[in-house]
Amino acid sequence: MRMVDIIAKKRDGHELLPEEIAFFVNGFVSGDIPDYQMAALLMAIYLKDLSHKETAVLIDAMLHSGETIDLTGIAGVKVDKHSTGGVGDKTSLVLAPLVAAAGVPVAKMSGRGLGHTGGTIDKLESFTGFSVEMSSEEFVDRVNRHGIAICGQSKELVPADKMIYALRDVTATVDHIPLIAGSIMSKKLAMGADAIVLDVKCGSGAFMKDQKSAVALALTMVEAGKAMGKETVALVTDMDQPLGNAIGNALEVKEALESLQGRGPQDFMELVYALGSRMVVLGQKAHDLEEGRKMLEDLISSGAAFAKFKEFIATQGGDADQADFPETLPAAKYMREVKAPESGFIHRLEADLIGHASMLLGAGRATKADVIDLGAGIMLRQKRGDRVAKGQVLAELYANKESLFAEAEKVVLSAYKIGKKAVPGPDLVLKVV
Amino acid sequence: MRMVDIIAKKRDGHELLPEEIAFFVNGFVSGDIPDYQMAALLMAIYLKDLSHKETAVLIDAMLHSGETIDLTGIAGVKVDKHSTGGVGDKTSLVLAPLVAAAGVPVAKMSGRGLGHTGGTIDKLESFTGFSVEMSSEEFVDRVNRHGIAICGQSKELVPADKMIYALRDVTATVDHIPLIAGSIMSKKLAMGADAIVLDVKCGSGAFMKDQKSAVALALTMVEAGKAMGKETVALVTDMDQPLGNAIGNALEVKEALESLQGRGPQDFMELVYALGSRMVVLGQKAHDLEEGRKMLEDLISSGAAFAKFKEFIATQGGDADQADFPETLPAAKYMREVKAPESGFIHRLEADLIGHASMLLGAGRATKADVIDLGAGIMLRQKRGDRVAKGQVLAELYANKESLFAEAEKVVLSAYKIGKKAVPGPDLVLKVV
Repeated sequence: MRMVDIIAKKRDGHELLPEEIAFFVNGFVSGDIPDYQMAALLMAIYLKDLSHKETAVLIDAMLHSGETIDLTGIAGVKVDKHSTGGVGDKTSLVLAPLVAAAGVPVAKMSGRGLGHTGGTIDKLESFTGFSVEMSSEEFVDRVNRHGIAICGQSKELVPADKMIYALRDVTATVDHIPLIAGSIMSKKLAMGADAIVLDVKCGSGAFMKDQKSAVALALTMVEAGKAMGKETVALVTDMDQPLGNAIGNALEVKEALESLQGRGPQDFMELVYALGSRMVVLGQKAHDLEEGRKMLEDLISSGAAFAKFKEFIATQGGDADQADFPETLPAAKYMREVKAPESGFIHRLEADLIGHASMLLGAGRATKADVIDLGAGIMLRQKRGDRVAKGQVLAELYANKESLFAEAEKVVLSAYKIGKKAVPGPDLVLKVV
Repeated sequence: MRMVDIIAKKRDGHELLPEEIAFFVNGFVSGDIPDYQMAALLMAIYLKDLSHKETAVLIDAMLHSGETIDLTGIAGVKVDKHSTGGVGDKTSLVLAPLVAAAGVPVAKMSGRGLGHTGGTIDKLESFTGFSVEMSSEEFVDRVNRHGIAICGQSKELVPADKMIYALRDVTATVDHIPLIAGSIMSKKLAMGADAIVLDVKCGSGAFMKDQKSAVALALTMVEAGKAMGKETVALVTDMDQPLGNAIGNALEVKEALESLQGRGPQDFMELVYALGSRMVVLGQKAHDLEEGRKMLEDLISSGAAFAKFKEFIATQGGDADQADFPETLPAAKYMREVKAPESGFIHRLEADLIGHASMLLGAGRATKADVIDLGAGIMLRQKRGDRVAKGQVLAELYANKESLFAEAEKVVLSAYKIGKKAVPGPDLVLKVV
C-alpha cells in the first residue's frame, strides 16, 4: 500500500477502504508517513468528504492510536457528555454533580484548552487546592466511592488526534465535519464511556455558525457512536448569544453554584435539564425524559446536587466551604458597567464578540503559555428579547487592570443589536439528533 | 500575510492575488513555508484550479525563484522548442541543426530525465567525446559562431520548480494542467527564449491521454507565454503510437541521421516540418509556414542540415565522422524479431507499452542512478494502418542480454492490436493552438 495512491483515490472522490484508513492513521502516528503527505490527504478529504462509514473507521483507527481508558472497574452505566464549546458554557460544572447525585457514575476527563475562558479544569481551580492530579486507580476508586471524579487528559490518549489536529490547524482543514467528528468521537470513545450525550452548539459563538452544519455534525457523530456500539444522542443548541449570564472562570463557577441551588438563569437550566435528563435515561436511572427531568429538579431543590458538588470539590483537595461563601472565590479588583446607548428590544447579542471581550479582559487563553485571570469576565444583565431603556446596564465588565475596560466595552457594545420591535427570546434546544 | 489564509482562500475556490502567489513561491523556496502547508495548497489548487491569470503569475514567480539565462548576447530571435515527451521522440536531434541551418539561433538547454529512453543529451552521448559541459560565456559564443549549442541544466535554474515538483510527485498532484504548465513554462522562460514552440503530445504514450486535456494544457501554456510577452505557439500531436520507428538512444540517433539526409519516416518528418516551419517563422527567417517548410526541405535535400549537425557534434567535442558511419555508434549485441501472430490490419500500436518494453531492454532510466544502455531499444517495422501477414516481422528488439527478450517480446506483442478491417494511419498534428 502506498500513501500517494490513497491520496489520489480520495482526491478523485472515491471511498477509502478500512485498511487504507488504518494505514494512513498508523503510518502518520509512527512517523512512516510524512506530514506533507498527510496534509495533502487532509485537503483532499476536506474537499471530497468522508462517508459516515469512512468516518467511523477513521474514529476507530484514531481511538486505537494510543492508550484507552478502562472504566470497567466502575459499576453502572458510564455516560459522558461533550460540548463543542461556546461562550459562557459552564454546563459541566452543574451537570456532573447533578447526574452523579442521581446515581449515574461521572468519570470525566477534561481539558484546559484555548478560548474565551479557560476549560472546566481552569474554572474548578477557582477553589483553593483543587487538583486533577491522580493515578488511574485513584480515579476509578473515587468514582466508585463518591460517584464523581474529574481528571486531566493523559498525553498518551489518542496521539493521532493531537498530531492530525496540529496539522489541520496550519493547513486550513479545521472546519470539516467528518474530521471534527473524528477528533471529538475518538477522544470520547478512548475515555471509555458506555453512552455519550453530545451538545452541538450553533450560532455566532460556536464553531458551527448555522443550524444546517451543526445538524450535519451532530448526525455524523451520532452515526459514528452507534457504529462503534455506543448509545449516542446529540442536541443542537443555541450559541448565537452566550449561555447564561456569566462569562469568565470564577464568575461562571458562581453562576454554577447558584444554579445548583435552584437560582440558575432560565436558558442555562433549560440546557442542563435537556442534557441531564438524557444522561440519567441512558444511565438507566430514569425510564423516560420526563421522569429524568423531575428527578433532577428534585435533586436541586432538595440540596442533594449542591451537596454532591461540595463532596466532589473536597475529594479533589479543594476548599469546599468556598461554595457556601462564593465571595471567597477569585474576584477582579475593578468593575465597569456598560449601558444601553438607546431604548428598544435586544434583537441580537453576538456570542463571539462577548467571547472576544472576555479575552480582552484577561479571562481566556490565546496561546498555551497564557496565564488566565480567574477573576476577570463579564456578567450579562440583558439578553436577547429583553426590553431596555437608554442608560440601563447591559453588562458588567470585570478586570484586574482598569486599562482593559475601554476596548472591551466597545466590543461589548458592538455585540448588542437594539431594535424598535419586540422580539422573542431564543429557543435553546434547536434539534435532537 | 499568512500561508494558512492563502490555503483557505484557494480551498474555497477564490482567485489568489499576485502578491499571495509570490508569497508562497518565495516562502517555499526560502524554507519559510513548510512542505506540509505547500502540500495542502497544492491539493487545493489541484481540486479548485488556477485561472490563466493565476497560472501566468505562478510562472513569473517560479521563473524568478533562481537564476535566469541571459541570451541577449546572442544575435537574432531565439526560438525554443519544448515537447511534453513521448516514446520515440527524437525531434530535437533533427530540429535543432535544421533550424540552425536556416539561421535561427539554437541555444538549447536539455535534460537527461527519467523515461523509456534517455533525454536528448543521453542520445547525443552516443557520439564518442560529446559533452555539454561549458561555461555560459562559451555557450553564448558557440551559438553566435555556429548557430547552435546544447548545454545541460544548471542546478540554480528555477529551484521552485524542482522543489514543487518533488512535492507534487508524492502528494498525488502531478497531473494538473496549470501546475504542469507552470513547471514547463517557468523553465522555458528562464532559459531566455524570445519565442516558444510547444509540442503537446496526446495519447497512450503521453502524459495527456486524451485530446481534450492536451488542448487544455496547450491553451494554458500559450496564454501564459503571451502573458509573459513571448510569442508562443502549441501543436497538439499524436502520441498514441510511437513517433517514427526507432525507440532507444543510438537507434534514435541513427533515425535522426537518416532524417537529416532525407530518409526519415513519414510521420516523424511531418512533425519536424510542422514544428520547424513555425520556428523559422517566429525566428523571422520565413514569412509564412509554406515558405518556412520549403526552406527546411531544401536544407535537408542540399545536405546543409546534415552538415550543420556534424559541425555541432564536432564543436561539442564529439566524433562527427560517426555521423557518416552510423555503424560506429553504440549497438546492441543481440537482436530478436517479434512476428505477427495473425494476419490483418494494425488498429493500434500502444506507445506506452512500447516505451515499457524499451525500458525492459535497458534503454531507459527508472531512477536517476540507473545506467542507460545506449545500444538497446526497438525498431518498429509495422505501424498503425499497415497490413500485415501472419509471421511477418512487426518489430526488432535490441539488447545486450538475451535474457531480456522474453518479457519485452510479450509486452511488444500486447502493444499491437490487429483487426480484420482496414484502418487509416493517424494524423500527426491534431490541433494548432
